Amino acid sequence: MNFSTPTLIVNKTITLNNLDKMINVANKNNLILRPHFKTHQSIEVGNWFKEKGVGSITVSSITMAEFFSSEWNDITIAFPLNILEIGKLNLMIKENRVKLLIDSISSLKALDNQLEGPAEVYLKIDVGYNRAGLKVDEKQKIKSIINFCKTSDKISFLGFLAHFGDSYKSKNKMEIKNVFQKSIERIKVLSDGFPNFRISIGDTPTCSTIKKYPDFINEIRPGNFIFYDLAQYKIGSCEIDDIAIRMICPVVSIYEEREEVLIYGGSVHFSKDRLTENESDIFGYVYFGEVWDVSNKIGYIKSLSQEHGVVKLEKQISLKIGDKLNVIPVHSCLAVDKMGAFYESGKRVEIMK
Amino acid sequence: MNFSTPTLIVNKTITLNNLDKMINVANKNNLILRPHFKTHQSIEVGNWFKEKGVGSITVSSITMAEFFSSEWNDITIAFPLNILEIGKLNLMIKENRVKLLIDSISSLKALDNQLEGPAEVYLKIDVGYNRAGLKVDEKQKIKSIINFCKTSDKISFLGFLAHFGDSYKSKNKMEIKNVFQKSIERIKVLSDGFPNFRISIGDTPTCSTIKKYPDFINEIRPGNFIFYDLAQYKIGSCEIDDIAIRMICPVVSIYEEREEVLIYGGSVHFSKDRLTENESDIFGYVYFGEVWDVSNKIGYIKSLSQEHGVVKLEKQISLKIGDKLNVIPVHSCLAVDKMGAFYESGKRVEIMK
Repeated sequence: MNFSTPTLIVNKTITLNNLDKMINVANKNNLILRPHFKTHQSIEVGNWFKEKGVGSITVSSITMAEFFSSEWNDITIAFPLNILEIGKLNLMIKENRVKLLIDSISSLKALDNQLEGPAEVYLKIDVGYNRAGLKVDEKQKIKSIINFCKTSDKISFLGFLAHFGDSYKSKNKMEIKNVFQKSIERIKVLSDGFPNFRISIGDTPTCSTIKKYPDFINEIRPGNFIFYDLAQYKIGSCEIDDIAIRMICPVVSIYEEREEVLIYGGSVHFSKDRLTENESDIFGYVYFGEVWDVSNKIGYIKSLSQEHGVVKLEKQISLKIGDKLNVIPVHSCLAVDKMGAFYESGKRVEIMK
Repeated sequence: MNFSTPTLIVNKTITLNNLDKMINVANKNNLILRPHFKTHQSIEVGNWFKEKGVGSITVSSITMAEFFSSEWNDITIAFPLNILEIGKLNLMIKENRVKLLIDSISSLKALDNQLEGPAEVYLKIDVGYNRAGLKVDEKQKIKSIINFCKTSDKISFLGFLAHFGDSYKSKNKMEIKNVFQKSIERIKVLSDGFPNFRISIGDTPTCSTIKKYPDFINEIRPGNFIFYDLAQYKIGSCEIDDIAIRMICPVVSIYEEREEVLIYGGSVHFSKDRLTENESDIFGYVYFGEVWDVSNKIGYIKSLSQEHGVVKLEKQISLKIGDKLNVIPVHSCLAVDKMGAFYESGKRVEIMK
């Protein structure tokens, strides 16, 4: 392929290897693997999961549920119900089985009020990330939600769904394990207090690290693991050669004095997600040569404008204008979302529009 | 309109007012206004400029030049030439007049080698931002570029193009003026050394602040000023009520204890651009009530995930699930790019695909 503009490419072999490892963890622990599809947003990559026997998925919006409902009929929308989209939900529940997420009694009542068919809900539990959900010690609120569902003739209460988001602040496997331990203890309190309900957990850092799960966990929902990225590598979720995605960027200028290179590749391609290394911002690791060879790191992206990326070179290398560099993005989910498509073995793969 | 998902809206009255002010500055100083269209990326908003008599534009990629070439025939591509796209350029120069940007002799030679028709080039000058361009004291390099163009039968040398990117680090009008002064002194050295060439400058902070330009400046290229955003407000480029863009986001959950609200609106809508205020990250100012009324600020977005935004409330306010909040985004260019469309007076306006 002749990639003359910034282009995202995916390595299917690495992707399938990441998938096999996650399926293995799920199988050994008797867990349902319900991967989060917000990372790839593509029917084609979804089919790679299907071929491996995965039957249920997670999405992050009602729009994304609609998109995947052409191919999947067991979809959990792991985002608190947006009641304004009840019209779309009512259309979907007639044909497919979507599982909804609520995190308050008012949202549940609004749902019950406007729902035109049966629906299953999870209650979102906040184990310390302070983003969404009820805390495990808000027992009265949890009880009234469960009780409300019992009296509803449309809504069934499935159980509890949590996201151990603090794992994203980890710097190594030990810290990931600590987050898992701390979070799972809170979930256990819940499970003890409200037994016999399903419990769904799972983010890429913990699911890539934890090999043994307690029996009260029913399913895991990692997403990013399918491609991984630089952020996951720095967290400790994966090795550098587990990363299945690259942005190919043309060199447009070379500044020998400041040992920097300008690439065509900016925030409209990568997003502005960044890491810090030795007090420098890092927007991607930069490689030259064979695309999937991780031995050829030549520097990192130190700044991004809308279309410009400035690469700081870390080694002497002979480059010329028009060369193509391979960049490992900081955040694969956002790079995929930004690009709207990627290439696998030279074939263009479209994502959700 | 019933905006049930995150939706970007634009206020045409404010937009035109911003445009009028910029036209006024250009006219008073006898400058060509060559606005940067990467902010809105839309044919429709482009027409608003046309109706005000603007005849020349700036874009940030060859793809964007192609997009606007259906309507515009004087387009400067203010991004160093990506020689890998020479095929597209050769098609465009046959029908339209695009002005190119180069910042090295090697890129110029590659262009001369592969060009199939006449082209005009600007030399990119780096006045201290260290992103792209030659420094004003690299006289030998500048001379050889000008001389090369003299001998080329295809390429004409137009002059110098600079971007005073340091203005984006300003915190008030005085700092913006200082950046302008420092940068303009460097440009003057260039103008004295290489007279009779055109000089193109201009970014939103300086163009929104500087009222009097030296005679050796020929044109200005601001872009963001058409909508402005929170970043520009904090820099000192505009007042808060000059901002012509909002993201409408549904409330999906309310956490009274921590005085926070969860909105449907995340990094796939806003991008991850952020500001810092009192040591907190800010991803947008949040308002409730009449959309363009800036007296009703209720808080700010403190964190963004892919679809989630967590709003920190700053005042007691009675909100319910399904309410819609109005958010001033940190970076309008990236929010527009992310969203792919916006609404003006209830009408959907598509941007470049």
